[in-house]
Amino acid sequence: MAPRKLHVGIVGLGRMGRRHALNFLERTFRAEVVAAWALDDEEAGWGHKELEPHGATIYTNYDQFLQHAGLEAVVIATIAGAHADQAIKAIERDKHVLCEKPLSHSSEIVSRHISYPCLNADTLKSQSVVDVASQKPQLKVLCAFSRRFDASYRKAWERVKSGAIGEAVVFRSQTCDMINRTSFFLPYAKASGGVFLDLNIHDIDLCLWFFGQDVVVKSVSASGVCAVHPELAEVGDVDNAMSIVEFWDGKVAQFFASRIMASGQHDMSEIIGTKGKLVVNSNPADSLVEMHEAGGIRRELPTDYYGRFEQAFVTEANEFTAACLDDTELPFSLPGAVKAVEIAIALRDSLASGQKIHFDRSGRRIS
Amino acid sequence: MAPRKLHVGIVGLGRMGRRHALNFLERTFRAEVVAAWALDDEEAGWGHKELEPHGATIYTNYDQFLQHAGLEAVVIATIAGAHADQAIKAIERDKHVLCEKPLSHSSEIVSRHISYPCLNADTLKSQSVVDVASQKPQLKVLCAFSRRFDASYRKAWERVKSGAIGEAVVFRSQTCDMINRTSFFLPYAKASGGVFLDLNIHDIDLCLWFFGQDVVVKSVSASGVCAVHPELAEVGDVDNAMSIVEFWDGKVAQFFASRIMASGQHDMSEIIGTKGKLVVNSNPADSLVEMHEAGGIRRELPTDYYGRFEQAFVTEANEFTAACLDDTELPFSLPGAVKAVEIAIALRDSLASGQKIHFDRSGRRIS
Amino acid sequence: MAPRKLHVGIVGLGRMGRRHALNFLERTFRAEVVAAWALDDEEAGWGHKELEPHGATIYTNYDQFLQHAGLEAVVIATIAGAHADQAIKAIERDKHVLCEKPLSHSSEIVSRHISYPCLNADTLKSQSVVDVASQKPQLKVLCAFSRRFDASYRKAWERVKSGAIGEAVVFRSQTCDMINRTSFFLPYAKASGGVFLDLNIHDIDLCLWFFGQDVVVKSVSASGVCAVHPELAEVGDVDNAMSIVEFWDGKVAQFFASRIMASGQHDMSEIIGTKGKLVVNSNPADSLVEMHEAGGIRRELPTDYYGRFEQAFVTEANEFTAACLDDTELPFSLPGAVKAVEIAIALRDSLASGQKIHFDRSGRRIS
Amino acid sequence: MAPRKLHVGIVGLGRMGRRHALNFLERTFRAEVVAAWALDDEEAGWGHKELEPHGATIYTNYDQFLQHAGLEAVVIATIAGAHADQAIKAIERDKHVLCEKPLSHSSEIVSRHISYPCLNADTLKSQSVVDVASQKPQLKVLCAFSRRFDASYRKAWERVKSGAIGEAVVFRSQTCDMINRTSFFLPYAKASGGVFLDLNIHDIDLCLWFFGQDVVVKSVSASGVCAVHPELAEVGDVDNAMSIVEFWDGKVAQFFASRIMASGQHDMSEIIGTKGKLVVNSNPADSLVEMHEAGGIRRELPTDYYGRFEQAFVTEANEFTAACLDDTELPFSLPGAVKAVEIAIALRDSLASGQKIHFDRSGRRIS
Repeated sequence: MAPRKLHVGIVGLGRMGRRHALNFLERTFRAEVVAAWALDDEEAGWGHKELEPHGATIYTNYDQFLQHAGLEAVVIATIAGAHADQAIKAIERDKHVLCEKPLSHSSEIVSRHISYPCLNADTLKSQSVVDVASQKPQLKVLCAFSRRFDASYRKAWERVKSGAIGEAVVFRSQTCDMINRTSFFLPYAKASGGVFLDLNIHDIDLCLWFFGQDVVVKSVSASGVCAVHPELAEVGDVDNAMSIVEFWDGKVAQFFASRIMASGQHDMSEIIGTKGKLVVNSNPADSLVEMHEAGGIRRELPTDYYGRFEQAFVTEANEFTAACLDDTELPFSLPGAVKAVEIAIALRDSLASGQKIHFDRSGRRIS
Repeated sequence: MAPRKLHVGIVGLGRMGRRHALNFLERTFRAEVVAAWALDDEEAGWGHKELEPHGATIYTNYDQFLQHAGLEAVVIATIAGAHADQAIKAIERDKHVLCEKPLSHSSEIVSRHISYPCLNADTLKSQSVVDVASQKPQLKVLCAFSRRFDASYRKAWERVKSGAIGEAVVFRSQTCDMINRTSFFLPYAKASGGVFLDLNIHDIDLCLWFFGQDVVVKSVSASGVCAVHPELAEVGDVDNAMSIVEFWDGKVAQFFASRIMASGQHDMSEIIGTKGKLVVNSNPADSLVEMHEAGGIRRELPTDYYGRFEQAFVTEANEFTAACLDDTELPFSLPGAVKAVEIAIALRDSLASGQKIHFDRSGRRIS
Repeated sequence: MAPRKLHVGIVGLGRMGRRHALNFLERTFRAEVVAAWALDDEEAGWGHKELEPHGATIYTNYDQFLQHAGLEAVVIATIAGAHADQAIKAIERDKHVLCEKPLSHSSEIVSRHISYPCLNADTLKSQSVVDVASQKPQLKVLCAFSRRFDASYRKAWERVKSGAIGEAVVFRSQTCDMINRTSFFLPYAKASGGVFLDLNIHDIDLCLWFFGQDVVVKSVSASGVCAVHPELAEVGDVDNAMSIVEFWDGKVAQFFASRIMASGQHDMSEIIGTKGKLVVNSNPADSLVEMHEAGGIRRELPTDYYGRFEQAFVTEANEFTAACLDDTELPFSLPGAVKAVEIAIALRDSLASGQKIHFDRSGRRIS
Repeated sequence: MAPRKLHVGIVGLGRMGRRHALNFLERTFRAEVVAAWALDDEEAGWGHKELEPHGATIYTNYDQFLQHAGLEAVVIATIAGAHADQAIKAIERDKHVLCEKPLSHSSEIVSRHISYPCLNADTLKSQSVVDVASQKPQLKVLCAFSRRFDASYRKAWERVKSGAIGEAVVFRSQTCDMINRTSFFLPYAKASGGVFLDLNIHDIDLCLWFFGQDVVVKSVSASGVCAVHPELAEVGDVDNAMSIVEFWDGKVAQFFASRIMASGQHDMSEIIGTKGKLVVNSNPADSLVEMHEAGGIRRELPTDYYGRFEQAFVTEANEFTAACLDDTELPFSLPGAVKAVEIAIALRDSLASGQKIHFDRSGRRIS
């Protein structure tokens, strides 16, 4: 008998949802896409055309979607503000969950969950997902930090783990998007939660990976400018942001985010240890081609993060599927995703107030 | 109704056959592996374990394998000497064929096929595949030059086609293997047909791609040394070879092959046009990680060609499958593969004799 | 008649003084080294051996040195704490002055000079050099920020000036020293004034170059760790420091300094403008050699900043000489050097207090 | 007493002569330019303006120039055809000689010198310089192969010498000029002796350095195309040439020359040993600046070989001067320069005839 496949449903068929849907459909051997939830007619139309022929049922009602017979796992790829609620519902229905980052950045009060004094309302929402998930330990609930599945970051991690650079003490990382001059940009950016939740959330997550999830934040400090997009100031955002995060553990991190790169997407990270340093992607390129032409030597870059991390998304789909089917451990745990949101929100607050924000030794925000 | 999938059989379950089998099984959405032919018990064992659970039948009799009900296409991944015969039989049985390179390098006389005065016995064998295939134009018969499916080479080709470098006039290319000190190396290398058929065949094929398949060879000249493996001299081979191929079309190519790279696999190519130059893979690396350590900055390389071209093999499997299912054109035609073998064999002869070999304007070898 | 040469005296014949002495002696065609001041017998001995045969008189008394007949210009290369006093005396004696960076970092009160409310005692000292120099406008007084003379930084500047990257809005720069495990390190580092005055002073100076010297600081914020050298904590210093400097002009800078690089010296900078970005030295190397060896591809780095900037020092000597002889403008003015010290000291204070430091719109420190 | 300086005379004040003149005048501390020979009024005018004020006498009569009182050494930087005669005369007048490459490429018969059966008239001329020089062993006679003085090539050589790559067995090297579309190009190129004597002569010299000057040529083979400059065919030259040189010592070299690079000057070399490989300049650049702009990341290249090797020329001037003053050994001997010419001429002949040229075990040309 052929090995059984995981029955997966996709939540949201927008840009990211379609990528996840096709990755699970075509590039995840052990999964089958059996259902999808579409936000609107346009999304549903895509689902009918691309997924239905392969056996998936398209829903526009989320509860009905969750009741699809045999559905085992859901992939949440809607707007960030919806992630937490949809994840919680799915967990309550006993589905494995792969949820796009960030878990949350909305500011509504999640009254039904116990409050955490050190968290504000934004992180509460993230925390609630963790709470619900913790009551169903048999479920696999994963926040989709795609870079954790990238082969280069994993290679770096293997070397750190092996002790090759001694103890990691300094982490420097950037997420820099290509400038986008289309009319889609401003609405997207304004709804994104800001550069820290939209871009640096990845760098923060990587930092927690390389430093260890148990590190305790001591302070955060952020600055930024609106260099090209003054409209971002309306939502308290910037198009270039730099920040420092200190930890009580004698470690320190420096982040940079930009939305104005002329050349393309450039995400890079640097892990400095007591014995050496690792750098990931200091020389970005979209291929191995160099063009020798009038003006010199040129190489092109990926135009967006998916161009850089496409293979990581495929790995993510396959590993999530394997963990669900085989009941094996996920590569990283959910509470770290909450910590990443917490740090990102503190950075946003620091940017807004122009003040450094301090935390006590338990990680409780004290200013 | 779900779109139908191509029913594929794998011929040979050695190192390359297993890779093809898994690529078609797990990473080619539109294909199903329904059968496989195993050379011996060891190969059959692997097939029973890895392929049978997913619905494939394992054969050790090639004729029975070809009679598997519903089999539509075969992937030939046996030793080079068997390629031609197996391909011809499959074509005669109306199967689409994806055949590993080279089509042939054996020296038996293929008596039943018309002789080509300009070809020696080696290329005859390749030519016979073309002849048989030409009688079944409905079949897709492809020689698996994996680099044709590599994203970087394709990007280079797009630029050449767009006129970005003017007319391509000089092609320089190398295939350099990591040194292999295991006991497997010598038997493998000695049976490989030599550096030109085993390594530079790729560079020759790329040359024919970038120059156009219709270019006519004017001369070939090859030299080489046994730097580390004196035993290769026993079969007329070397572990470092350099060669020049002139074309009557005012174009010229330079190749290099090495089997002694200390650092890893390094395959690179350079296309020089009248207006610019393209270089593929001048800075090889196995990932985006750079290690800053005592001694400087270091990066690691793939240890073999599969590490460099894995994704190209997957693309190859998917595109071959799509061409069979949709009856669309293959990305390149079969006769070019014969021309590549012809040039490789002429280079081997030049190396053996120490003489430059000349061809007339029709491409007929005259010395 | 042969064109006359500038009569130069070298102040201090330690490591840096010797380099300057030989650069002016052997590699500055329009200069002659006519005198040198030595701190002690060891330095004097070197001067007698290396400089005296070429016509230089060696002094151990600074006043007598300054009275050397025909002396026109002095190069100050003593410890940082002595720079300001020696420069002031030389200016008072009507000598042109090339003074090693930083102008000062000592904390003595310079009572004879008007006080600057926004400066603390440290910057006062720097400011006093400017005051004295401003009274002798015919003299060339230059703070030796060697990177200003580096060909790559100049090329970057030409592009910024040409408008190629639009308006420069973000500046990121690092000075990273190779780890030094000799017994010389700690005494040197402890006397150096700390990472901001010893290392990042260069990055700050570059920032003022690329942003324009008139930018007004809005805030500074610094963090750091003692990763390998816990002893540095005794003098309030760290071996890794990251910092952010905001300007009222809508620009922002991020600095990094490290004393623990395993691989070698790595100083790099990034200038981000509204239309593009320039990066200087993202791939450090001590030569054009790459070593392909077991373990991959490796390149070596300079082991110290002189290895990186040697040619810049030579250019500096030649341009300073030309400016003195021809009475032409120096490439940058002295007050900027004070501003750089001021920012570095504010960063040191921020590191010590753990607080962000704010400045009002006139650049006056308000916290 | 100040150490004495070498009294140098410059022969020829064209493009290269001016560079040598200024390097010896301004950047060679131990030398003085006391005289110069100018070909014509234009050259003499430059000499009067730039050299005379610093004490040099300008001559237009070569014999009178050689009789300049106190003249100790001459630097020959005229057209290649004049090198040998001028060098011989200078040696006969007991002057040290630094002679631009190549020693010769003219075809006149040098009747007064014993003939060398294996050399044709071209190399005879080179050989004659060696003969004359060998009679004055006290003189320093050096052929100006500037790359021998380049820091990167020297670093590579140190590693080879140390055994780091085992025995060097394969050498691959290229000299690629930026395309030149000015009216100066064709006259220059046509008089240059062709790509092998003008460009690859450097690579051949490097090959003899890394393989050892005693290696014996076994065969040479060359091919080429006129891709952009069909006029070069008139003088039997090409604008792209590739060649192979086999040695009886189990070593082999591959060269490439191009005059049509769109991006700039790109000279690189690769030394492959039994244990590793060294590459010099695989990533050419004119500075450490990378431009991140629309279209990707770009770096510029030197526009000519002097841009790449300027510092090597300065080192050459200083080391030649030191060898003359101190009577120390030159870094390489003169006979190698003849061997390089011999190989270059054989390659030119191979290109012309389309034939591989063979040599016997004594290095005697047999076809």
